[in-house]
Amino acid sequence: MMSEDDLIARFFAPMAGQGGLGLTDDAALVAIAPEEELVVTTDALAAGVHFFAEDPPDSIARKALRVNFSDLAAKGAAPAGFLLSLALPKDWREDWLRAFANALSEDARVFACPLLGGDTIRSPGELFLSITAFGTVPRGKMVRRDGARAGDRIYVSGTIGDAAAGLMLRKSGWDKALDPGARDFLIDRYLHPQPRLGLAPILRTYASAAMDVSDGLVGDLTKMLRVSGVSARIELPRIPLSDAARAALAADRTLHARLLTGGDDYEILCTIPPHAVGSFEAAAKQAKIDVTAIGVVETGNHAPCFLDEDGTKKDFSEGSFSHF
Amino acid sequence: MMSEDDLIARFFAPMAGQGGLGLTDDAALVAIAPEEELVVTTDALAAGVHFFAEDPPDSIARKALRVNFSDLAAKGAAPAGFLLSLALPKDWREDWLRAFANALSEDARVFACPLLGGDTIRSPGELFLSITAFGTVPRGKMVRRDGARAGDRIYVSGTIGDAAAGLMLRKSGWDKALDPGARDFLIDRYLHPQPRLGLAPILRTYASAAMDVSDGLVGDLTKMLRVSGVSARIELPRIPLSDAARAALAADRTLHARLLTGGDDYEILCTIPPHAVGSFEAAAKQAKIDVTAIGVVETGNHAPCFLDEDGTKKDFSEGSFSHF
Repeated sequence: MMSEDDLIARFFAPMAGQGGLGLTDDAALVAIAPEEELVVTTDALAAGVHFFAEDPPDSIARKALRVNFSDLAAKGAAPAGFLLSLALPKDWREDWLRAFANALSEDARVFACPLLGGDTIRSPGELFLSITAFGTVPRGKMVRRDGARAGDRIYVSGTIGDAAAGLMLRKSGWDKALDPGARDFLIDRYLHPQPRLGLAPILRTYASAAMDVSDGLVGDLTKMLRVSGVSARIELPRIPLSDAARAALAADRTLHARLLTGGDDYEILCTIPPHAVGSFEAAAKQAKIDVTAIGVVETGNHAPCFLDEDGTKKDFSEGSFSHF
Repeated sequence: MMSEDDLIARFFAPMAGQGGLGLTDDAALVAIAPEEELVVTTDALAAGVHFFAEDPPDSIARKALRVNFSDLAAKGAAPAGFLLSLALPKDWREDWLRAFANALSEDARVFACPLLGGDTIRSPGELFLSITAFGTVPRGKMVRRDGARAGDRIYVSGTIGDAAAGLMLRKSGWDKALDPGARDFLIDRYLHPQPRLGLAPILRTYASAAMDVSDGLVGDLTKMLRVSGVSARIELPRIPLSDAARAALAADRTLHARLLTGGDDYEILCTIPPHAVGSFEAAAKQAKIDVTAIGVVETGNHAPCFLDEDGTKKDFSEGSFSHF
């Protein structure tokens, strides 16, 4: 049987960053310049809750890391390192762990975010993992959730609802007509979030508030407005959907609510003061990240109002998807 | 059913520190002065592996937090904040969570280490938790594991083996004659580690290397010597045992190896250069923390040598306990 030390030396030490001390110490050091502040975030994922135990190990690794990067991006932070807590089921296999570690290592390199340490234990049940990611921002520049003000424009990055549709396809083998390309695209969006780290410096400069969309656009927007003490009006036709999501929607109109409340988008939701809208859009374009204005912040503490093409209000009473 | 947000607001937000932003943001800020460095550590605990699912919730909370503080203490760091990932089993109860949160809150206050954020999810099986703790040290002053040099004296804090005996009592109801006071003491040592944070500044000043003893003295010492590239000679009769552990040992001599290899001690193991021994002992005495010299670092890369009263070598071939 492989000991924890052997396992760490074989699979994880090769990807350790400088502060990780070769993963042979009790703790790690996070380097931070005097003019910077440290942003920390943690996300836990469990088999059967956030992913399927039979998902490819490299997909599980990438998703676990990237959902944390998505949080950092929303806060305007650049990744600086991460810690991994991993609880392996009794029947774990070396080839599984090798694929997991290789993908984690590759993402750590691509996103310039080294592994600094962690803890590997035996799970009494299913696979469970928790990643804590560190990011840096210039002092006082972290973008918070609670800064949305009446009059600010509301933007989202990328497209919304793809992952929710992908999960549905993955789970139930939803059988409406959908070409294989669209199907693969949606499942890939579910398995492999793309953290919008390119938006981080742009959000620091222009956004009054931001968060990442992980539990569905409707619910997450509601949370952001609530902590900011404001409300909003959203024009539903403006919410950006991918061609694949549109095709799924054309086949089944009842999907609409699920796309907007389903979760796992890992796109950025932010508010931009009116005077900064032009500069924000230009900067996002230069960073090659699509951003779309979907509505406006209003005074009041009622839930946001979602308007259809013809101006009728739409209700998303099921609210937000919760992984809990 | 309680949502994750309700659960956080009710049980965890009241103990949040300033950088935690009321636990309503995607991330938290860790404040760190320009002359300081950040030390990070993470420990995962699972029901059925690190504790019993039926252990009191306040004991589980305290242990989860304190094992991290023990790592920080060994590195010479002062606690600055922590993140909690919590996977609750399907049948979690509010009174359980209230007791858990109250104890966590109390320890956070006692150890001046506020909750900064976290993630609460539904576990597909047993209770699982992972805590990431942050500590600060003056720049360049973290005490590492790999600094032990030939000639250094080897010290441990407190007493060794109590928790291993406590676990045995807890698990098997070990039936040797042991008075109830001794029994309670040993079980308490297993359930409630005492992180030696008072030693942190003393270790920074005098220790060439340090780690906390979590997987058994024999195995952990072996690890520290290996990364330092040295060996050691340990005098077994010098290893400090509590009266309760001595009583257990008197009733069953076969316990000896288990006490030294059993784990869960959460005491400090450190090496002190010969010239600093007097100052180190005086400083520890002033901090009211018992420290005991148990041996000396030697050149070589063989496993440490453990000598009995009469100078015979003792072998602990089972090595270190592993939670993995």
